[in-house]
Amino acid sequence: MPRTAFFVSDRTGITAEMLGHSLITQFEDVNFRRITLPYIDSTEKAHEATARIRHQAEVDGCRPIVFSTVVDDELRAIIHVDEALTLDFFEIFIGPLEKELGRESSHSVGKTHGIANFEEYKARIDAVNFALNHDDGVMPRDLNEADIILIGVSRAAKTPTCLYLALQYGIKAANYPLTPEDFGQHTLPKLLLPYRNKLFGLTIDPVRLAQIREERKPNSKYAALDNCQFEVGEAEALMRHVGVPYLASTTRSIEELATTIMHRTGLTRRTY
Amino acid sequence: MPRTAFFVSDRTGITAEMLGHSLITQFEDVNFRRITLPYIDSTEKAHEATARIRHQAEVDGCRPIVFSTVVDDELRAIIHVDEALTLDFFEIFIGPLEKELGRESSHSVGKTHGIANFEEYKARIDAVNFALNHDDGVMPRDLNEADIILIGVSRAAKTPTCLYLALQYGIKAANYPLTPEDFGQHTLPKLLLPYRNKLFGLTIDPVRLAQIREERKPNSKYAALDNCQFEVGEAEALMRHVGVPYLASTTRSIEELATTIMHRTGLTRRTY
Repeated sequence: MPRTAFFVSDRTGITAEMLGHSLITQFEDVNFRRITLPYIDSTEKAHEATARIRHQAEVDGCRPIVFSTVVDDELRAIIHVDEALTLDFFEIFIGPLEKELGRESSHSVGKTHGIANFEEYKARIDAVNFALNHDDGVMPRDLNEADIILIGVSRAAKTPTCLYLALQYGIKAANYPLTPEDFGQHTLPKLLLPYRNKLFGLTIDPVRLAQIREERKPNSKYAALDNCQFEVGEAEALMRHVGVPYLASTTRSIEELATTIMHRTGLTRRTY
Repeated sequence: MPRTAFFVSDRTGITAEMLGHSLITQFEDVNFRRITLPYIDSTEKAHEATARIRHQAEVDGCRPIVFSTVVDDELRAIIHVDEALTLDFFEIFIGPLEKELGRESSHSVGKTHGIANFEEYKARIDAVNFALNHDDGVMPRDLNEADIILIGVSRAAKTPTCLYLALQYGIKAANYPLTPEDFGQHTLPKLLLPYRNKLFGLTIDPVRLAQIREERKPNSKYAALDNCQFEVGEAEALMRHVGVPYLASTTRSIEELATTIMHRTGLTRRTY
């Protein structure tokens, strides 16, 4: 029997989705239908949301689970209905926090995922542009500005990781592919030498790599398993030789790669 | 007096950061130092985290706030210390959820932000590659594959929004800049005509646009306020004329743009 999970928010719904997702994935044998109701920021919209939740309860024949991050007291009261189990994030956490901090919270909408300030916003956009302009070995002069430079063989997930670092953390991340021309010299490509302390490597299991490359260039030398084994072996040997830390992307999501890199290098977020 | 907020997680720490951030930003006049302790997945690391929290309590002279999303019961017990206010996300929510669903949760680590399955992972990477290969009007043949095509004047935030849609939702988003050549014809650029129902517009306040463009090309016609006013006016008129819905990026974050577009177009996430 499928259950319905609602993610209700006065803003984007991202926090509610993440909260709810992390909880419902703990119940592997329950099949959840997920419905996000974002921008519930008026009594009218709150009543609409309530109607939708009640309707779903009837359709399902059991109570939906409502994960709510709505901040406003009046709207929160509307959303709580008997026909659902409502897990109200603010209700539960804001009380202990107010007590600990010895003051009342503002109970105001829209602090998360909004434009906190223009400078922070610009930092993110600049970081995205930086990643796009320093992708795949394209290296204009301003590499000094890079917070980090990811290196590794082609298709080791460098580009998405750079973009994630830029979008989520405002980190300026460049990336440079290690290609067969770079191997056998036991030294870093010349262009990278001045930035050794900014380098971080990504590697990947050769079998997985061959699989990924095969989809892009079927039956090519590029995708052949023995070539992938050669490239990965050489790249790892080079990174070990010159002392560049590296990480395998084989079983890690983009989030895991990005957060692990942040953690290991000691970089800190520019934006929240 | 600054307070310290710890975000403690057995995985990336992203959920803990987001939850904690949404709560502490409700206390505008409290200055928080933020420390993320990710990958706390062993008793040893849990004890290290605890030592760090206790140390901070001494330094600060008051209790740190610990936002924890650690799932494992044993590790959670270690992390709870008297010297901090611990807001334990799983402890609070998993109980009511288990009761409602009539079964125990798996209490297992690593369900969120990991590689759920290779297909889902590939969908994200494919979407990122799609966004990169269909950026700024570059439109190879496979535009049929696009879930959405963002249009708007140059620097209206199309590219970061496309990348966010790809990375976070696995949505294939192309973007096409509206330039002076496209105006005055009261019709869409020819290339876009077959995909009318996939179009969504981004617009921006001309003053903000001039400010952003000025940083890229100082003293250019491109950045001049009157030119920005002209381009934005024409782009909006065109979108209204042909019935393409649009949204202003001026006061919206990338998250807000992306989620609003998802909401209005009815697109649904491919990945969690």
